[in-house]
Amino acid sequence: MEGKEEDVRLGANKFPERQPIGTAAQVPEDSKDYHDSPPAPLFDPSELGSWSFYRAGIAEFMATFLFLYITVLTVMGVVKSPTKCSTVGIQGIAWAFGGMIFALVYCTAGISGGHINPAVTFGLFLARKLSLTRAVYYMIMQCLGAICGAGVVKGFQKNIYETNGGGANSVNPGYTKGDGLGAEIVGTFILVYTVFSATDAKRNARDSHVPILAPLPIGFAVFLVHLATIPITGTGINPARSLGAAIIYNKSHAWNDHWIFWVGPFIGAALAAMYHQIVIRAIPFKNKDYY
Amino acid sequence: MEGKEEDVRLGANKFPERQPIGTAAQVPEDSKDYHDSPPAPLFDPSELGSWSFYRAGIAEFMATFLFLYITVLTVMGVVKSPTKCSTVGIQGIAWAFGGMIFALVYCTAGISGGHINPAVTFGLFLARKLSLTRAVYYMIMQCLGAICGAGVVKGFQKNIYETNGGGANSVNPGYTKGDGLGAEIVGTFILVYTVFSATDAKRNARDSHVPILAPLPIGFAVFLVHLATIPITGTGINPARSLGAAIIYNKSHAWNDHWIFWVGPFIGAALAAMYHQIVIRAIPFKNKDYY
Amino acid sequence: MEGKEEDVRLGANKFPERQPIGTAAQVPEDSKDYHDSPPAPLFDPSELGSWSFYRAGIAEFMATFLFLYITVLTVMGVVKSPTKCSTVGIQGIAWAFGGMIFALVYCTAGISGGHINPAVTFGLFLARKLSLTRAVYYMIMQCLGAICGAGVVKGFQKNIYETNGGGANSVNPGYTKGDGLGAEIVGTFILVYTVFSATDAKRNARDSHVPILAPLPIGFAVFLVHLATIPITGTGINPARSLGAAIIYNKSHAWNDHWIFWVGPFIGAALAAMYHQIVIRAIPFKNKDYY
Amino acid sequence: MEGKEEDVRLGANKFPERQPIGTAAQVPEDSKDYHDSPPAPLFDPSELGSWSFYRAGIAEFMATFLFLYITVLTVMGVVKSPTKCSTVGIQGIAWAFGGMIFALVYCTAGISGGHINPAVTFGLFLARKLSLTRAVYYMIMQCLGAICGAGVVKGFQKNIYETNGGGANSVNPGYTKGDGLGAEIVGTFILVYTVFSATDAKRNARDSHVPILAPLPIGFAVFLVHLATIPITGTGINPARSLGAAIIYNKSHAWNDHWIFWVGPFIGAALAAMYHQIVIRAIPFKNKDYY
Repeated sequence: MEGKEEDVRLGANKFPERQPIGTAAQVPEDSKDYHDSPPAPLFDPSELGSWSFYRAGIAEFMATFLFLYITVLTVMGVVKSPTKCSTVGIQGIAWAFGGMIFALVYCTAGISGGHINPAVTFGLFLARKLSLTRAVYYMIMQCLGAICGAGVVKGFQKNIYETNGGGANSVNPGYTKGDGLGAEIVGTFILVYTVFSATDAKRNARDSHVPILAPLPIGFAVFLVHLATIPITGTGINPARSLGAAIIYNKSHAWNDHWIFWVGPFIGAALAAMYHQIVIRAIPFKNKDYY
Repeated sequence: MEGKEEDVRLGANKFPERQPIGTAAQVPEDSKDYHDSPPAPLFDPSELGSWSFYRAGIAEFMATFLFLYITVLTVMGVVKSPTKCSTVGIQGIAWAFGGMIFALVYCTAGISGGHINPAVTFGLFLARKLSLTRAVYYMIMQCLGAICGAGVVKGFQKNIYETNGGGANSVNPGYTKGDGLGAEIVGTFILVYTVFSATDAKRNARDSHVPILAPLPIGFAVFLVHLATIPITGTGINPARSLGAAIIYNKSHAWNDHWIFWVGPFIGAALAAMYHQIVIRAIPFKNKDYY
Repeated sequence: MEGKEEDVRLGANKFPERQPIGTAAQVPEDSKDYHDSPPAPLFDPSELGSWSFYRAGIAEFMATFLFLYITVLTVMGVVKSPTKCSTVGIQGIAWAFGGMIFALVYCTAGISGGHINPAVTFGLFLARKLSLTRAVYYMIMQCLGAICGAGVVKGFQKNIYETNGGGANSVNPGYTKGDGLGAEIVGTFILVYTVFSATDAKRNARDSHVPILAPLPIGFAVFLVHLATIPITGTGINPARSLGAAIIYNKSHAWNDHWIFWVGPFIGAALAAMYHQIVIRAIPFKNKDYY
Repeated sequence: MEGKEEDVRLGANKFPERQPIGTAAQVPEDSKDYHDSPPAPLFDPSELGSWSFYRAGIAEFMATFLFLYITVLTVMGVVKSPTKCSTVGIQGIAWAFGGMIFALVYCTAGISGGHINPAVTFGLFLARKLSLTRAVYYMIMQCLGAICGAGVVKGFQKNIYETNGGGANSVNPGYTKGDGLGAEIVGTFILVYTVFSATDAKRNARDSHVPILAPLPIGFAVFLVHLATIPITGTGINPARSLGAAIIYNKSHAWNDHWIFWVGPFIGAALAAMYHQIVIRAIPFKNKDYY
């Protein structure tokens, strides 16, 4: 596999004119240095003593709280109205989800990495970008934030919330559970693949402001998946969002399909991590010798 | 608290690989210098003799004038039509508010800071980013601009303006005043938190073009809050916008709830300033020794 | 006036901490050099011998052609449908106008400056950014492009085009000609003010990639003015767009109001040029001594 | 022609104040070096031995797969609903196409150039930006990806897919085949012209982050063409997208017009390549001596 990686490097250096358009055009790859970070350890006791660790968790909690608050409130405004024309519509719901991810990733990327989604955390953990300790901590904070965000929305109008589904995800009539699971897998794949592509260390090195722009395609990915799969499952692709809405809604039909919104996103995130690490980066997965 | 700040620094320097994605990835924090500005004095007589001070106020007046003109005109176009399908719709109203903030912050950021909103001015004042003199001056200019902007819209079609609510904010039927106040607090929190995050001096130092991109997430924050809370209060989160529409509309039911659109945004802005200064920056609020 | 300009400079240099947020924050104004270009001469015979002069005109023609083609075709798709819900809607029309300006300014800015609008050319001419020769040449090419663009759309469906207004601007029932003129003046002011702000030489100097981002707020300004004033005049703010549609539509009621869509945009552009040059730049208009 | 090119250079250097706004303003053209890549050879055996060649094909396959998956699923969600108001609407379809191109070009530009469209590949091949080998290889991978993407959507709901057109392109009633062909030619011209403008090597050299921003105008171009021409042909401008949907839908009326969605885009791409290389770049087409 060492040779395979070498091949990529040679290819890039020998034939730079090969890449017709795109970020790499005419910028020799060696012109700026980059180095892959070493893989994060599974357990890193030292980070438990750092304020930045706890601050990151607070930021994830707050971001997921605001994410659920805005998105579930937007969903409620649309579904409670008899005529969708006098609301922001289904497209407005998709903008709420994608737009909040854009704004929140922009705001929290420098503090916690801006995951706001256990599936993103899981994908980045598989790529060894963060420790297991941190991954579990983030997921707990995300789920707590989501529960609080949905809870505040229910507080505004308890009856309307309960009669209109509370923004909880479930497989819609006309689709099988397999359809729903597939839609969640591919949807989360698109999101996590965009996260990996937009934050690739190679890109960072070539052009240092990519991370600044990264929130835009990431937010758009969320928007686009919602455009496509709201008719199928209401679109989860974020287990914390699905859990928060389900717990606050707390009706049995929200719980029946709930496993889909954990299994699907985690499978999609794992596939995206594998695709990026094995195919795009051409580095053997978890090959510690390479680093 | 000195030690707490030190902890953050050590954490960032010792474990740079900790931050999995985001703006800070692989850019050592020391690679560029940054320094926090000293806190602005409460009263600064010298700025009263500077043309740039008066120019900033004119820019705030003009920006708030154009903001109210476009947004209230868009609202009028939607509400006066019997069928919303032949208008830009509620989603179009949300775009008008968010888009104008994006464009106007882009245009005026270099002249006045691009507040266009007394709540933003209040939040930045609490963080000691501008003097009390300047804060009060900005708020007055913003309110005057808002009144003129709404007045021009009324001038186009006086009758239609008065029979359709004039874009004034009030708590909609089915919601309590507490709901409206809560929606204004959280909505303004999202806006002012985005303003702080997007214009953080630490970010400036690491990557100098962040301020250029800052108007986009700020405009999106306004758009998103409108998507969610138009059904509750019509969305204020900007006391000048609420005041301008209320004064020009001037019906008692617009004035009954008017306090909500000052108290809510100011509380939200204060909470965002506290969250950013205490939690995110990890600097004791108003700790002059640190600077 | 020399002293007034000095005042601005002193203000900026002595109190950099004054500007709370925005592009200038913490970047000392002297850190990069900038210089105002000298005002363009009224007539410059030498540019008539340069290929880049003719190429710029071709680019303006092509851009205005594509602008009218896409926008009038979008308008036709919406107005010919009995139910607006099965079309892209009025909001979609606003996106077509604003989005095309974004994409076309991005593509042609480096070739011709990306005006695509006689009012923009007029405003920049008043600020002495281009010669009279070039300004007249651009306007002619823009109008020719607009006529061709609308003509191609009519070629698709002649009958439907003529029975649905052909995308021509006129003052809608319920509004006076004065309302229409006012809406055009303020709308064009917003557009040209954004053009000046986004392409300010001072900004260029401080942060060299602003011009790259400039097309986004410029496109958004066009989008926002359409959201607000489509119910009043269909939104001109571009005399070439109004002329092209009127010539191809060629019904008397399109010509009755046509003067509004030349006088309004030119007044708005002149006001924006004055506001930017006198208030924002604080340089006496056409003060050659300063340069 | 050597003299013509010289003219352009002299023009730019002698009269920099001529270009009133835009990317080139005040940045002397010589301040950064750029060089046109030499034209790609027709056949380049060496690239067949490079992993980056195969990886690029996989990336094109995956991107076109995800493109068709999201867009055809969005189309299905809209067309199967009796009332468009309770869907994302036609405008939502346009966002799905444009937004996916934005996100996917952003993600794959550094790997394969981010074509995701045989017409883009054809245009870049005509401009000699990639070898014939690579062009044919890309087109095959794009078509395979498109077939798989549409197939997965059909797998969700076979009956609904077949009764609602399956997202396949055809000329709508009321339009002639000539109208459809014309709409495809101009639409693809806009897309490929934007690709050339946004990735111009001259721009790269002057301002190195243009390629990072390029996906945004490219995605917007796709969005805008859809706004305008969905009522005419459903909008192809991408032969792989049309082929994938037609093969999976596989009804004769989808095949009757199918040639339009290959001939139109290829003519449009060729015209855009000629316009950019001959008029905008002012370099004789395929003039090897110049390079």
